[in-house]
Amino acid sequence: MKIKYLTAGESHGPELTAIIEGIPSNFEVSKNYIDEFLSRRQKSLGSGGRMNIEKDEIFITSGVINNLSTGGPIAIKIINKDWKNWKDKEIEPFVVPRPGHADLVGTFKYKHDDVRLSLERASARETAIRCAIGAICHQILSQLGVEVVGYVSSIGQQKLENIDLEDIGLIKKLVDESEVSCPDKEVSELMINEILTARKKKDTLGGSITLVAKNFPAGCGSYVHFDRKLDAKLTSSMMSVQSVKAVEVGSGIEASKDFGTAVQDQIVLNEQNIERITNNLGGFEGGMSTGEPIMITSYLKPISTTLTPIKSVDLASQKETETNYERSDTCAVPRAVPIFESVISIDLLNSLIENTGGDNKELIIKRVNEIKDITLDSFNLANKTWSMKYENE
Amino acid sequence: MKIKYLTAGESHGPELTAIIEGIPSNFEVSKNYIDEFLSRRQKSLGSGGRMNIEKDEIFITSGVINNLSTGGPIAIKIINKDWKNWKDKEIEPFVVPRPGHADLVGTFKYKHDDVRLSLERASARETAIRCAIGAICHQILSQLGVEVVGYVSSIGQQKLENIDLEDIGLIKKLVDESEVSCPDKEVSELMINEILTARKKKDTLGGSITLVAKNFPAGCGSYVHFDRKLDAKLTSSMMSVQSVKAVEVGSGIEASKDFGTAVQDQIVLNEQNIERITNNLGGFEGGMSTGEPIMITSYLKPISTTLTPIKSVDLASQKETETNYERSDTCAVPRAVPIFESVISIDLLNSLIENTGGDNKELIIKRVNEIKDITLDSFNLANKTWSMKYENE
Amino acid sequence: MKIKYLTAGESHGPELTAIIEGIPSNFEVSKNYIDEFLSRRQKSLGSGGRMNIEKDEIFITSGVINNLSTGGPIAIKIINKDWKNWKDKEIEPFVVPRPGHADLVGTFKYKHDDVRLSLERASARETAIRCAIGAICHQILSQLGVEVVGYVSSIGQQKLENIDLEDIGLIKKLVDESEVSCPDKEVSELMINEILTARKKKDTLGGSITLVAKNFPAGCGSYVHFDRKLDAKLTSSMMSVQSVKAVEVGSGIEASKDFGTAVQDQIVLNEQNIERITNNLGGFEGGMSTGEPIMITSYLKPISTTLTPIKSVDLASQKETETNYERSDTCAVPRAVPIFESVISIDLLNSLIENTGGDNKELIIKRVNEIKDITLDSFNLANKTWSMKYENE
Amino acid sequence: MKIKYLTAGESHGPELTAIIEGIPSNFEVSKNYIDEFLSRRQKSLGSGGRMNIEKDEIFITSGVINNLSTGGPIAIKIINKDWKNWKDKEIEPFVVPRPGHADLVGTFKYKHDDVRLSLERASARETAIRCAIGAICHQILSQLGVEVVGYVSSIGQQKLENIDLEDIGLIKKLVDESEVSCPDKEVSELMINEILTARKKKDTLGGSITLVAKNFPAGCGSYVHFDRKLDAKLTSSMMSVQSVKAVEVGSGIEASKDFGTAVQDQIVLNEQNIERITNNLGGFEGGMSTGEPIMITSYLKPISTTLTPIKSVDLASQKETETNYERSDTCAVPRAVPIFESVISIDLLNSLIENTGGDNKELIIKRVNEIKDITLDSFNLANKTWSMKYENE
Repeated sequence: MKIKYLTAGESHGPELTAIIEGIPSNFEVSKNYIDEFLSRRQKSLGSGGRMNIEKDEIFITSGVINNLSTGGPIAIKIINKDWKNWKDKEIEPFVVPRPGHADLVGTFKYKHDDVRLSLERASARETAIRCAIGAICHQILSQLGVEVVGYVSSIGQQKLENIDLEDIGLIKKLVDESEVSCPDKEVSELMINEILTARKKKDTLGGSITLVAKNFPAGCGSYVHFDRKLDAKLTSSMMSVQSVKAVEVGSGIEASKDFGTAVQDQIVLNEQNIERITNNLGGFEGGMSTGEPIMITSYLKPISTTLTPIKSVDLASQKETETNYERSDTCAVPRAVPIFESVISIDLLNSLIENTGGDNKELIIKRVNEIKDITLDSFNLANKTWSMKYENE
Repeated sequence: MKIKYLTAGESHGPELTAIIEGIPSNFEVSKNYIDEFLSRRQKSLGSGGRMNIEKDEIFITSGVINNLSTGGPIAIKIINKDWKNWKDKEIEPFVVPRPGHADLVGTFKYKHDDVRLSLERASARETAIRCAIGAICHQILSQLGVEVVGYVSSIGQQKLENIDLEDIGLIKKLVDESEVSCPDKEVSELMINEILTARKKKDTLGGSITLVAKNFPAGCGSYVHFDRKLDAKLTSSMMSVQSVKAVEVGSGIEASKDFGTAVQDQIVLNEQNIERITNNLGGFEGGMSTGEPIMITSYLKPISTTLTPIKSVDLASQKETETNYERSDTCAVPRAVPIFESVISIDLLNSLIENTGGDNKELIIKRVNEIKDITLDSFNLANKTWSMKYENE
Repeated sequence: MKIKYLTAGESHGPELTAIIEGIPSNFEVSKNYIDEFLSRRQKSLGSGGRMNIEKDEIFITSGVINNLSTGGPIAIKIINKDWKNWKDKEIEPFVVPRPGHADLVGTFKYKHDDVRLSLERASARETAIRCAIGAICHQILSQLGVEVVGYVSSIGQQKLENIDLEDIGLIKKLVDESEVSCPDKEVSELMINEILTARKKKDTLGGSITLVAKNFPAGCGSYVHFDRKLDAKLTSSMMSVQSVKAVEVGSGIEASKDFGTAVQDQIVLNEQNIERITNNLGGFEGGMSTGEPIMITSYLKPISTTLTPIKSVDLASQKETETNYERSDTCAVPRAVPIFESVISIDLLNSLIENTGGDNKELIIKRVNEIKDITLDSFNLANKTWSMKYENE
Repeated sequence: MKIKYLTAGESHGPELTAIIEGIPSNFEVSKNYIDEFLSRRQKSLGSGGRMNIEKDEIFITSGVINNLSTGGPIAIKIINKDWKNWKDKEIEPFVVPRPGHADLVGTFKYKHDDVRLSLERASARETAIRCAIGAICHQILSQLGVEVVGYVSSIGQQKLENIDLEDIGLIKKLVDESEVSCPDKEVSELMINEILTARKKKDTLGGSITLVAKNFPAGCGSYVHFDRKLDAKLTSSMMSVQSVKAVEVGSGIEASKDFGTAVQDQIVLNEQNIERITNNLGGFEGGMSTGEPIMITSYLKPISTTLTPIKSVDLASQKETETNYERSDTCAVPRAVPIFESVISIDLLNSLIENTGGDNKELIIKRVNEIKDITLDSFNLANKTWSMKYENE
């Protein structure tokens, strides 16, 4: 990775902090752009109470001067507005780990004397600052012509089947208009009902989020070594987001059930351009971007904290017990969309920087254009018989 | 990663080579153990002709002396027996990239003058040496009490539903007895028919492979930073295997459709041990191993090379054309099982070494035992009210 | 590296920030301990004016709760008190790069439109936050029994020859009492004169700083692969500190001139303990710590900003010119000592964590004790003839 | 690092192996070029007996087809010709660790049952394969216009003072003609005498080797973060070579003793080019290459194995004893020159690839030319007053 970043911060601590290193110079980076991501992350349907306490905003304290990246590390922070309520609070002991969370194993691993010490960091509150870091990359990608958008593709049993990827702007608009971030109105209705039903049952729901990246150059990643496959890198990053339990590139799961002739994305000519009839493989062959839209779907399990009690153990009294909460979100999927857009943007920008090596905007734009399109001119085949000689004996 | 490894070698070159660095000393490593993995990778149903040419075997040239690891880098190689037929061969120009393969983008990226230069390295032949590297780790894990086994969980539309994980030895036996590496006889029959049907249609099939790791200690990986989640690391490695297009931890995809109360793995006591009723989350919470069996499923697309022609472009004549092959496997899934067992073993062993820091077998075994089980004694909660103080103002 | 850290911040920006990830839980971390390092970094002799503006202090905003590390990432910051004077300042264009600084190449690389954009980040102001990060590691090392101390071993032509390393506490005391951080009173006087002479000449001076680490366990680092040599890692970190142009392990430079019999640290018994007569190799053999005191010396060039003008180019008018400053430090070496103590502490702590793999204080202390001393019992040699068998044919 | 490599192999095992990953496609790589490095590494004066047993040569088994790099990992090997004498040998127990070697600590760390298991891997025999890997990079650098040459700058007390770097070809020629790889005839004579004297005394000698790299582009490495300083990276690699105990960039040690006005490399114009009067800083400012010749000197301690006995401990009988050898080199410095040329070439090539991001020769050459020279046109300063605005409140 040429881009490195670290995040820090507890859910109820004074602030969340992140530093991102490796961002080239002279790109526009603006608080507004980032704040818009944070705001989408705080959407309301299916969310609990905390969203009302804090309207997150970002402060940039290094690496961006007069709205331009300097090439140096960028430090950002989000003040936890809730901190003022916590700093002098008498905190009740937390001794019953929540199944599905880091509570039990975290307390075991770090020998914490209160379960809260694990949950404070494991909390999805961390995604706020990760979302902000990625929003910076998203803004830079847009300056390089790469568009990244995400949408909810399922909630519980309700699934969005197909979607036309031609007009990314339209998808964005539809996603914004939907209470559940789904670009189809009818399916949105079904999803909303699904959530309301779960809420009535005092239960929670998961779902899936699909990301699309357009105009990403071909040839990023490589087949030559297992650890250079860009799709594998993206998959890992998706999986690192809280609640994700499966990741799919293109129509990967359907592809495992279908015939080969139906799955492969056949190659055709469109004048000089070499193009595909379908995009079942989600923009990747051999771990490399093909130039087709990148498509990745992440599957999220339901929120662990359920109003309906489930079994756990009281680590203090050492007896079996049940969990007991008074407040919980029903479904976090709709507002998670900007988090995924952010996380994938970090990796995609990193890959572009690795493939261009540029230190400043001017050089990177020039070099991205060099590798952008696969056309007939890109090739210069010898078209003659040959033999494979090695200097091996 | 404390374990680093590199593989090299072309499909029709003189040999495949790998070096693995970071293996502690004094563990047994044997050619027989590795050769058994290579042999399973050469199973026959659904495979094409090459399997008959070469019976792969491993040579160990460094890092293992008298069957014990020395602590130094281990170098291994597999001689390509087919090389003698290729070294002086007149090779026909390869100018029509195969959809679904690295051919088109690889030739574009590396400016090769013949498409074969990409395919020689992108070929799944590489998995032979990766399989061998991982077999070493698998053998070492077994000396640490960790068992890793894989099986085919679907081929095309035929799916194995549930499986009892209690007796890993039995699973291994059933997998070995099945022509399609599926531990259920009836489902195996259905899968075999599925493959035969595809073969008749001159088409190809994919499927899925599930891995199970038992007795892996709790607390490996961490929730504290996104890039330390062990499930995300494993996912990435699975995705780096040729043909994989989706990866699922536990019942991840079903979990995205179900209610929270049904999904979370509730916590109960079994005398002093803290255990779970279910294992829907596949042995991971918060990116950390829970001590429950690790379960990961990889979904593979069908083989790209189909006897039925599909559309492509002739890069020499610059015209549209169709692919044209005389030989192809129908389904590579059954014999891919040892590859996945190998690849996950590398990551699991790496994680154990990271969590114990030991340089030699004696020290690692001692330290693995220290972190093995989550029991009531593992905790020492203060169980009193407290407040969160930071030195932040 | 199990410990990762990033720093951010411009010399005249609002604040310096750092995040350190990989610190195990339950170690004491305190603002006072860190502030004492920052205060030593602001010592006065040979320093210019800025030191008076800001008395640096640290704020800890994540990862340390109630003075104990949580296992999560630790975020810290130093407010630049000078910021209030800069935020609305009209800044004059900076167009003449200073030889010896990052100015010329930085402006070239990042296509900055003012040279200040490079110098703001390249400034040694960055060492303040790096010093703070390392102070955390220094405090943790002390809880593991490892002591790290540094001192000035030369300034210009004045050199401290030998020093008795037996009593680290005494060295610390003497260093604290010396205006030039040199533990020898007479040599300190000579060094002070050297600096005063340079100041009179409107010139600047460099020198060298020697670090000593005691009670560091044997066997950290490894000979098995070039990139695991701990001395090479430490050397690289020293070289990453501003102004360092050479690094020496033990008496490395003298060793290159002397005979082999005089250089090697001969091995003797002290009851059960295996010890050395000398420590010319500075605590390393084969890239591994030997258990003897670690000794590393870094050589710093003089400060680049000299009151006496030197040649440069005006990048705006595109003409040759001379540098022209009104204020400069004469010698930064004495106050750089805590920076080096900090930087080496990060690497040493990282190495201990890698070699113990522990997540919490209790486990790490236990495991450090397992590898601490090389005694006769540590070995179990077969003491018989054998042969080297490989499974290679 | 975009280039990754691993080496494996024991001193008396069947073969040394290396894999290098990350080499772009279409560069010439030839056995002859590499063998010439191996041959220089086997020069005779001051060397012992083994050099006569084996004339090393390289075999390339992957990643280079018809003398062109494919973009895939390159595997190489050197057959240990001595292996045939060792494979069935009865080996005497080795129980007395040699001071100065990895023997004592290695046996401790890896719990080997014979000291030979450590020395087999710690041996400088490993440098043969590392030398070969780097020779590949050296050959590629030459195709990019970058020349790398090394020479002996001191042996024991005999030191080469100054050297004219203008004509690299001449330096190479003089080095080749000198029995001690020193480009000055008179100093060579003194060095030869120094070695002969040591040999007579049954003792050993060290010395230093200076590397020069010309035409390396400016702006590689970066000041923005401590771990991106290219000089620090190079230093670490030098230090990873067996016997090195100090590393110096430019005239680093002298620079620490001199005045600032004398040390900084003043900037002047040569028509459009921006150049330096001196090169005291060895081609680096702020961790970045300046475009001036890179100069790095490594200081090597004398060989540890001395014919004159020194003190050690018999780990079997657990008594103090003395070392006892019948054969040893007197001075390894002259023949170590190609090793250092190789090792630095790996890092320099890596840095060029990182800064150009190219996958194939054509693209890399094009992009190297874009960043090659610092001229007046490279800059576009605003040359007006401004202020530093952050979005931080």
